[in-house]
Amino acid sequence: MSETIKTDILIIGAGPVGLFAVFELGLLDMKVHIVDILDKVGGQCAELYPEKPIYDIPGIPEISGQGLTDALIAQIKPFGPTFHLGEMVTGVERIGDPLFRVTTDAGKVFEAKCVVVAAGGGSFQPKRPPIAGIEEYEAKSVFYSVRKMENFRDQNVLVVGGGDSALDWTLNLQPLAKRLTLLHRRDDFRAAPDSVNKMRKLVADGAMDLTIGQVSGLEGADGKLMGVHVKGNDGTVVPVACDAMLPFFGLTMKLGPVSDWKLDLNEGGSLVLVDVSTFETNQPGIFAIGDINWYPGKLKLILSGFHEGALMAQKAHRYVYPDKRLVFQYTTSSTSLQKKLGVA
Amino acid sequence: MSETIKTDILIIGAGPVGLFAVFELGLLDMKVHIVDILDKVGGQCAELYPEKPIYDIPGIPEISGQGLTDALIAQIKPFGPTFHLGEMVTGVERIGDPLFRVTTDAGKVFEAKCVVVAAGGGSFQPKRPPIAGIEEYEAKSVFYSVRKMENFRDQNVLVVGGGDSALDWTLNLQPLAKRLTLLHRRDDFRAAPDSVNKMRKLVADGAMDLTIGQVSGLEGADGKLMGVHVKGNDGTVVPVACDAMLPFFGLTMKLGPVSDWKLDLNEGGSLVLVDVSTFETNQPGIFAIGDINWYPGKLKLILSGFHEGALMAQKAHRYVYPDKRLVFQYTTSSTSLQKKLGVA
Repeated sequence: MSETIKTDILIIGAGPVGLFAVFELGLLDMKVHIVDILDKVGGQCAELYPEKPIYDIPGIPEISGQGLTDALIAQIKPFGPTFHLGEMVTGVERIGDPLFRVTTDAGKVFEAKCVVVAAGGGSFQPKRPPIAGIEEYEAKSVFYSVRKMENFRDQNVLVVGGGDSALDWTLNLQPLAKRLTLLHRRDDFRAAPDSVNKMRKLVADGAMDLTIGQVSGLEGADGKLMGVHVKGNDGTVVPVACDAMLPFFGLTMKLGPVSDWKLDLNEGGSLVLVDVSTFETNQPGIFAIGDINWYPGKLKLILSGFHEGALMAQKAHRYVYPDKRLVFQYTTSSTSLQKKLGVA
Repeated sequence: MSETIKTDILIIGAGPVGLFAVFELGLLDMKVHIVDILDKVGGQCAELYPEKPIYDIPGIPEISGQGLTDALIAQIKPFGPTFHLGEMVTGVERIGDPLFRVTTDAGKVFEAKCVVVAAGGGSFQPKRPPIAGIEEYEAKSVFYSVRKMENFRDQNVLVVGGGDSALDWTLNLQPLAKRLTLLHRRDDFRAAPDSVNKMRKLVADGAMDLTIGQVSGLEGADGKLMGVHVKGNDGTVVPVACDAMLPFFGLTMKLGPVSDWKLDLNEGGSLVLVDVSTFETNQPGIFAIGDINWYPGKLKLILSGFHEGALMAQKAHRYVYPDKRLVFQYTTSSTSLQKKLGVA
């Protein structure tokens, strides 16, 4: 287990609302670490519509999801948040009043005075392929993301899928693997043409295999995979030996482990109820902002999440600095705030 | 009395929060007229700090008050709001359920289904010079703004002040007036140097007068001014004949007539209490958004006013279109919203 990382605030979710919360917390001198299950910053904005224009951010007539993400990263730069990407928060345990021990699936441990859930519609989680018994191999021989490339050195690796993730990891892991096979249900790829061309060159050179078909069954025991059965489009089934399988079937949205943290949820069980004056949940010290929360009148607008983050920061300040009185100041007129922003 | 102007929504206040409300209302097909006491759009932002940078608008690391105003004007352009500037709302009378008759000090009459008070810290009102008995001449011979230049044709006009407003109106009215006198307490002006130079040239050419001193008394009857007494810096008092006096002593902030509309106010009596799920006041159909409202947790941030406008629009829609069900849509994905924005 790694060393405990101590921080004022741990934010779960690096989408626009989580990012702007860093700004509001930073103005009030609170230090932030952010964990996100995606391997890049920006949440839905950057993942689902990086190129698509957004028209309803106040003061910005048109901006792309990636553009908004980039602007927010620039805006919070003075506060130097630390990002932990490609990790999922798996546990939140109260150890103080308030103080939380937060763990991730990458084995990191945080101690945070407050936890801010800014997880959007939930975490984006990899889609599980419909293969009987796959669960028992997950995280042992079946992986939906690559944490450490070295783990695949000298292994027989089977990458499944036809999109950018499948092709990128094919190209990245092929040099390390004992033998790499890319499996896709048809000989046509949605990935960037350049990646597809590189892959075809490796196949032509005999440096890797390309197989067309779908996994119809797994072979192995105790979570250790030995091979898979691949059903071709003509119905024939052939065995493919492999030590590790990496299916890249896209992402799906799930509330994820948040649902286990004893937070009051709405009737549907998919949204976290909050106090509208602070955006705190029923658990003192745990806040929920952005699309994941619900209150009367709630609209799932990015701009509402921004507002919620500002009010949250006021209450978080009381937990982080219980003895300091907070004086409300404007960035336009306060030299003290401008110093924090590096502009005074 | 002019013809009644019918509109879905009347917004009082053309600051950033009032402007962005036009966007949220427009997305939901509601037409808007906006009244503001200032003679330009932008409220405090444009009036008090047009050049000063603002750092806390989400997604915009730095923007001037004027820059934010310009961006919002561009953003709401597809919805063509009508502005009524340099006017103050003087009366709001309920004539339906809900339907309001709204009057301004320029004699305009509106019939609006909802009224949205986005008046910031209150209306900016001209400072009254400390001259005994000046009230009885106001709006008859003493004016704090110029509604119609023609009203001053062939009159003896006395402009008082040394800032941009005083100099601008001096230059604008001098060609029309019978004789124009600019009075300032010292021979030194805060106005743009170019305006000051033009004024000095007119004085040198004998086309107008410049007098140094302060008004110490008024002469006239029944609101009709005949002249003023000007006390020079050496203590001597001289009479100056004039039919109209225009003092430009800057603006001061007042809650204004809003305080008479039977709205529940906070303890200090300066802020309007609202329901946080709709930002409606205790008067159904009258909303208050931005710095003028109060609710638990309220922060006087522009971004909070933006959020409040979005939630207000949902409730206003129920009054304007009682039979239409509102389906929540995103500008990023809805072709219908994109058509309204003129981008699809």
